[in-house]
Amino acid sequence: MLVTGTGVDMSLFEPLERRGFVPRRPDRQRLSEDELIRELKDVVAYIHGGEERATERVLSSARRTLKVVAFLGVGYENFVDAPAAAALGIAVTNTAGAATDSVATFTIGQIINANWRITQYLGNRYPDWTNPLELPHELGARKIGIVGLGAIGTRIAGILRTAFGADVAYFSRTRKPETEAALGVTFRPLHELAERSDILVVMVPETEKTRHMIDAGVLARVRPGTLLVNTARPAIVEPTALHASMMRGDVALAVFDGFYARDSAIAGDLLDDFGDRLLVTGHIASHTREAMDRMMRQAVRSVENVLTGGNDDHLVGDRL
Amino acid sequence: MLVTGTGVDMSLFEPLERRGFVPRRPDRQRLSEDELIRELKDVVAYIHGGEERATERVLSSARRTLKVVAFLGVGYENFVDAPAAAALGIAVTNTAGAATDSVATFTIGQIINANWRITQYLGNRYPDWTNPLELPHELGARKIGIVGLGAIGTRIAGILRTAFGADVAYFSRTRKPETEAALGVTFRPLHELAERSDILVVMVPETEKTRHMIDAGVLARVRPGTLLVNTARPAIVEPTALHASMMRGDVALAVFDGFYARDSAIAGDLLDDFGDRLLVTGHIASHTREAMDRMMRQAVRSVENVLTGGNDDHLVGDRL
Repeated sequence: MLVTGTGVDMSLFEPLERRGFVPRRPDRQRLSEDELIRELKDVVAYIHGGEERATERVLSSARRTLKVVAFLGVGYENFVDAPAAAALGIAVTNTAGAATDSVATFTIGQIINANWRITQYLGNRYPDWTNPLELPHELGARKIGIVGLGAIGTRIAGILRTAFGADVAYFSRTRKPETEAALGVTFRPLHELAERSDILVVMVPETEKTRHMIDAGVLARVRPGTLLVNTARPAIVEPTALHASMMRGDVALAVFDGFYARDSAIAGDLLDDFGDRLLVTGHIASHTREAMDRMMRQAVRSVENVLTGGNDDHLVGDRL
Repeated sequence: MLVTGTGVDMSLFEPLERRGFVPRRPDRQRLSEDELIRELKDVVAYIHGGEERATERVLSSARRTLKVVAFLGVGYENFVDAPAAAALGIAVTNTAGAATDSVATFTIGQIINANWRITQYLGNRYPDWTNPLELPHELGARKIGIVGLGAIGTRIAGILRTAFGADVAYFSRTRKPETEAALGVTFRPLHELAERSDILVVMVPETEKTRHMIDAGVLARVRPGTLLVNTARPAIVEPTALHASMMRGDVALAVFDGFYARDSAIAGDLLDDFGDRLLVTGHIASHTREAMDRMMRQAVRSVENVLTGGNDDHLVGDRL
C-alpha cells in the first residue's frame, strides 16, 4: 500500500494493516513519474493524497499488482488517468463529499476577506489606520456568481443566500431547477454570469474541460472592480488573461487557495504586479481534521470494498 | 452642525442643509478636548463619527447652542458622556441596528480566518507550502462562545448555528430564553463559557462595566489553543492578562478590529511577542457603504426628530 500526501493520520489505515497491508510513505512530497513508478513497485492499493500524477505510463507499469487507486479529494481528473486505469482494470475511487463543509466554510471566509479588501487593512493599527479609499458593500447588497454548482458550490450558495441574503446566480454544465427553487438562485450562461457578478466564485474540479475555463473571453465580460474568488484549482483561471484583466482594473482582487507553479513567468508577473491585490493561501481549504479523517476513512473503505469485490459508492469509473 | 469621522458621505446631510444647517468638518481626525470645544462653538447638532470624546466639560461648554449629539454607532458610552448630556438637556442618540449585518458578517469572516490560522498561510505558494503543524477543525466541530448577545451577537450566533452547525453558547447580563430556543444556543456564566469554548467571540459595547471584562480571571479559565475573536472594542480585553495568556499558550491567536493605543507599552509587547498570532485590522467591521448610509440617514432623522420636538426611537436617555 502506497500513501502519498501530507497531513495523513496513519493510524486510520489500521483496518488495512490488519488485512496485511504494509503502508509505504515516499520520502519526497512531489514525486516525478519515474519516482512514482519505483514507489508503486509491488503495491496493491495506492492512496493518492499528494501532487504527483498517476499517468498512463505509471499505471501501466504498476498493473501487475495494482488493483485500486483511492484519490483523496474530489477532482481526481488531473492526478489520475482514470480512462487508462479503467483500460488496465485498475479501480479508481475518490472521496466526494468528505470536504464539502470545510471548503465551503473556508470559501465563505475568503469571500468576506475579499469583500473587505482585508489585505489592505491587515496589521493596521490606530492611530495609523488606513482610511478605505472606497467602502466595501455588505454581502447582502452584492451580486455573487458561482461557477460550478456541485456539492460545494451548492453549499456556498446556500450559506450566501440564507446567512447573508446575497443575490446569487450560478453557471453549471447542467441546470439545477430544484436547487434554484430551494435556494432562490438563478442560472446564467457563463459570460452573462461574469458580467452581472460583483464577486465571481470559482468552484469546479480541474479537468481537461475546466482548465482555463475562466479565460480572456470570460474576463472580458467582467466589470471594473470585480472580486474573483478561486478556492478550486488555480488552473481553472487562465493566468495571462487574469493578468490583463487586473491590469485593466476589471478584476480588482483575486483570491487563490494554491497558486500557479512558482517557476512560471506569469506567476511571477502576477505576484510582482498585483501583490497587494492577490490573497493567496497554500491549498488549505480542505485541510481540516474532520475532512481529512473523513477522506481517509472513506478511502480505506473504498479500498476494502474493491479488494473484496464488493460494491463501492465512490468508484469514478461510471462517470467516464 | 458638526460632523466628525471618516467615510462620511456628506450628500446624506441634504435634509438638514435644506433646514439651514451648515455642516462643519474638522481638519483633524482625532480631536483633543480643547479642539472639540472650539469645533462645537455655535453648533446645534453634532454628528459624532470620530474617535473624540464628548466629555462633560465639552458638552457643558457647548450647552448654549447644542441640542443633540447623534452618535454614529451603538456603543456611545465611551465617546459621549450621556449622563452629563442628560443633565444639560442635550439629547443623545445612537444608530443601533444600522451596522448589524456588516459587523456580524465581518466577524464570521474573522472567525473563519482564526480557525484556519490564516496568518500562517497567507502568501504561501506551491511548492513552498507550509504544512500545518496542526490541522484546524471544521467549525461544525467547534464549541464557540459568544460574550454579549445583543443584536450583533445574536446574528453571529444564528449564522454559526444555521450555516455552519457549530455548538454555540453565550454569556449575557440577561438570559435570553427565546433566543436560546430559536437558535439552539445555551447560556453559560462567563467563566464557564471561557472554559468550554474553542473560539471565544467578544461582542459587547464598551462601557465602564465591560471595559476589561475579559480579564485575568476569565483568561485563567481558557484552555490551551483557544482562539479569541474581538471585533468589538479592544479595551473589552485587558491587554496585560491577554499577554500572559498568550505567553502560556492558552490564547493561541487573537483577532482585533482596532487595537490598543499604539504608544502603550503593552500594545508594543503584544505585537513584538505575538505578531504572527495576532490578526489585527483597523476598525473596519462596520465600514460598509450600506451600514454607513443607514447610520447617516438614521442620525439625520434623529436630529430632525429632536429639533422638531418629535419622538425618536434612538434616544439613549431612557437607558441611563
